[in-house]
Amino acid sequence: MDPDLSALDEFLSDAGHDGYLLHAGSDLADQYYLSGFDAPDPFVTLYTPETTALLVSGLEYGRAKNEARADAVRRHADYDLHAKAAEHGRREAFTRVLVAFLEEFGVGDVATNGRFPLGVADALRERDVALTADRDDHVGDARAVKTEAEVESVRVAQRANEAAMRAAEDLLREADTESGVLRYGGDPLTAERVKEEIEVTLLRHGCALDETIVACGADAAEPHNRGSGPLRADEPIVIDIFPRDKTSKYHADMTRTFVKGTPSDAAREFHELTRAAFDAAFDALEPGATGADVHAAACEVYEDAGYPTLRSDPGAETGYIHSTGHGVGLDVHEAPGLSDSADVELEAGHVVTIEPGLYDPDVGGVRIEDIAVVTEDGYEDLTDYPVEWVVE
Amino acid sequence: MDPDLSALDEFLSDAGHDGYLLHAGSDLADQYYLSGFDAPDPFVTLYTPETTALLVSGLEYGRAKNEARADAVRRHADYDLHAKAAEHGRREAFTRVLVAFLEEFGVGDVATNGRFPLGVADALRERDVALTADRDDHVGDARAVKTEAEVESVRVAQRANEAAMRAAEDLLREADTESGVLRYGGDPLTAERVKEEIEVTLLRHGCALDETIVACGADAAEPHNRGSGPLRADEPIVIDIFPRDKTSKYHADMTRTFVKGTPSDAAREFHELTRAAFDAAFDALEPGATGADVHAAACEVYEDAGYPTLRSDPGAETGYIHSTGHGVGLDVHEAPGLSDSADVELEAGHVVTIEPGLYDPDVGGVRIEDIAVVTEDGYEDLTDYPVEWVVE
Repeated sequence: MDPDLSALDEFLSDAGHDGYLLHAGSDLADQYYLSGFDAPDPFVTLYTPETTALLVSGLEYGRAKNEARADAVRRHADYDLHAKAAEHGRREAFTRVLVAFLEEFGVGDVATNGRFPLGVADALRERDVALTADRDDHVGDARAVKTEAEVESVRVAQRANEAAMRAAEDLLREADTESGVLRYGGDPLTAERVKEEIEVTLLRHGCALDETIVACGADAAEPHNRGSGPLRADEPIVIDIFPRDKTSKYHADMTRTFVKGTPSDAAREFHELTRAAFDAAFDALEPGATGADVHAAACEVYEDAGYPTLRSDPGAETGYIHSTGHGVGLDVHEAPGLSDSADVELEAGHVVTIEPGLYDPDVGGVRIEDIAVVTEDGYEDLTDYPVEWVVE
Repeated sequence: MDPDLSALDEFLSDAGHDGYLLHAGSDLADQYYLSGFDAPDPFVTLYTPETTALLVSGLEYGRAKNEARADAVRRHADYDLHAKAAEHGRREAFTRVLVAFLEEFGVGDVATNGRFPLGVADALRERDVALTADRDDHVGDARAVKTEAEVESVRVAQRANEAAMRAAEDLLREADTESGVLRYGGDPLTAERVKEEIEVTLLRHGCALDETIVACGADAAEPHNRGSGPLRADEPIVIDIFPRDKTSKYHADMTRTFVKGTPSDAAREFHELTRAAFDAAFDALEPGATGADVHAAACEVYEDAGYPTLRSDPGAETGYIHSTGHGVGLDVHEAPGLSDSADVELEAGHVVTIEPGLYDPDVGGVRIEDIAVVTEDGYEDLTDYPVEWVVE
């Protein structure tokens, strides 16, 4: 099932652009989405409502012809890059090749992804190609609404994620406690060791990942701290896993917080409030609600209990210091956001996280995160993992 | 040992720029190199010869203050992002915050990485900030010359790489052959299974990686085809591994080609020629030589034997269809390149691959790749792995 690009076509037509131009490797999600081609080094995709054309190096030409979702594939040599480089130098030659490619497809005015490289943009503008950065990110908006096949890809990645979380929880469960520090197989159980277990499990399930968070104590009070060193008993341990399925390239995302032993009263309150904020956010998740509505539902729980949120205090360093969620797909963070400024209405097919949390260096961090798809009449939680936190 | 940025300072001074501006996550190597800060979402680094200042979200503020190699860290809230967003919308508010940040540091004219995002650039230009894409990539040139500590990081990653290659070769060695297909533990031995072994080994050695190439037969004749499916006896199997050490973020890179069984005469000639091209390229590797000189040395071996190269036929689809090597560091592909157009002289501290290969769908692919550092009087091969290919 191909994605629905009708809103993109409408934007191009309304704004008077001939097409949409990308210059990036497939690590840029828009590039993979529009081209269907997976290549590490930058290549060019020209999307028009009529045609999708790629411009690639000779090295990628064979693969691009076989694998890309494109009507036409050109390579640099088709426009005499080699001769042009001998005469003008490589950079100027590439610009001339790109201009010739655009001319072949009758394109002189393009919108680009906001992250289009400035160096290439200025070189094209010097040759009278009109480029306008698409600040409203129409490709990102198209990507945000998933087809059934895309939701299934997220579901597959989430199954791997659950296996990895289970492997991590099992390590905590099997660990002993000695002088307040967890031990496993005779050694201190470190954040690094738990991450290794998670990552090996994900690899065995066909997933890759850049980073995993296993953070304990004060580390966990910084939401993006990945955590390091020995894990301690009686303190919250935040485990946040966001793998990418290698085959589909779609992500999943889930967080659980565990305590091995006995949580403090303060940590217990953090977890209870976060569970309540999590439930409140899910109650607000439905088509027609905005991301800000869902975020507000979570914030209210915390604010009512006297904790700062970014809504009540934008400079807060403790309390609820991030947004309630984000879209997940080819990027682990993508549209739609569930934050104070998110005024776009949610719609069926949006895949988002719900991930409230409370943070204070004196208590630690607590976060709970599920991933869900918005449906016609509410949502379907794609996560199948209990929200239990005390590990005996 | 801090990197030598004197050439960058000189460029800024000569060109009349106040500083160098980056807007990217640390996946952009220049960003990590100049900021020393590892964060997935885009943040801002302003480098001037006097100071390095970061602008980050509240979510990253605590970590940035602790971890970044910066003289000053600011967060969006320091310039009232929240109030500005309420009045002007989030995008315009971010632009105003960025302008206020630049004003605080007295900066009105900046050079940027060529990949600076066009959307941010155009918004700043509308507010009279002068931005010029640094098309000569001065930060990339600085990154290309490694300190001793950086070379050591590559060496550590390369040790992990060798362990992974050993694990892969052992799988091939222990496999049986049945009806021309390799079998291991009763199942067909697939490219995917070998990659899993490689990747688990790398994880156990503290490395991450996005992709690995294990390609057999016609797959291997496309240099960037990652390979899939059952591996076959008597055909060249290209294994190309390029891990990133998770702690240092530096890469290694190595390729070996194996045959389980008996190679064809054609494949044998491919390997002999590639070994000769490999030796010739290393013979040419020394400070003062250009990347083109090293590439020419490899090309001559193939051309003398009657095979096309990109130098003799820029549109060639078989033969020697890529360049001889590339720099390796925070990026797996970085400066300096060893290609026909590489006219910059190599210097001590450059870390490069030497990786000639021959490709033909009827024969398969053969590639041999080591990684080396250019020294004052030649080079030091950082690779410790034999170049043997027939696996009994």
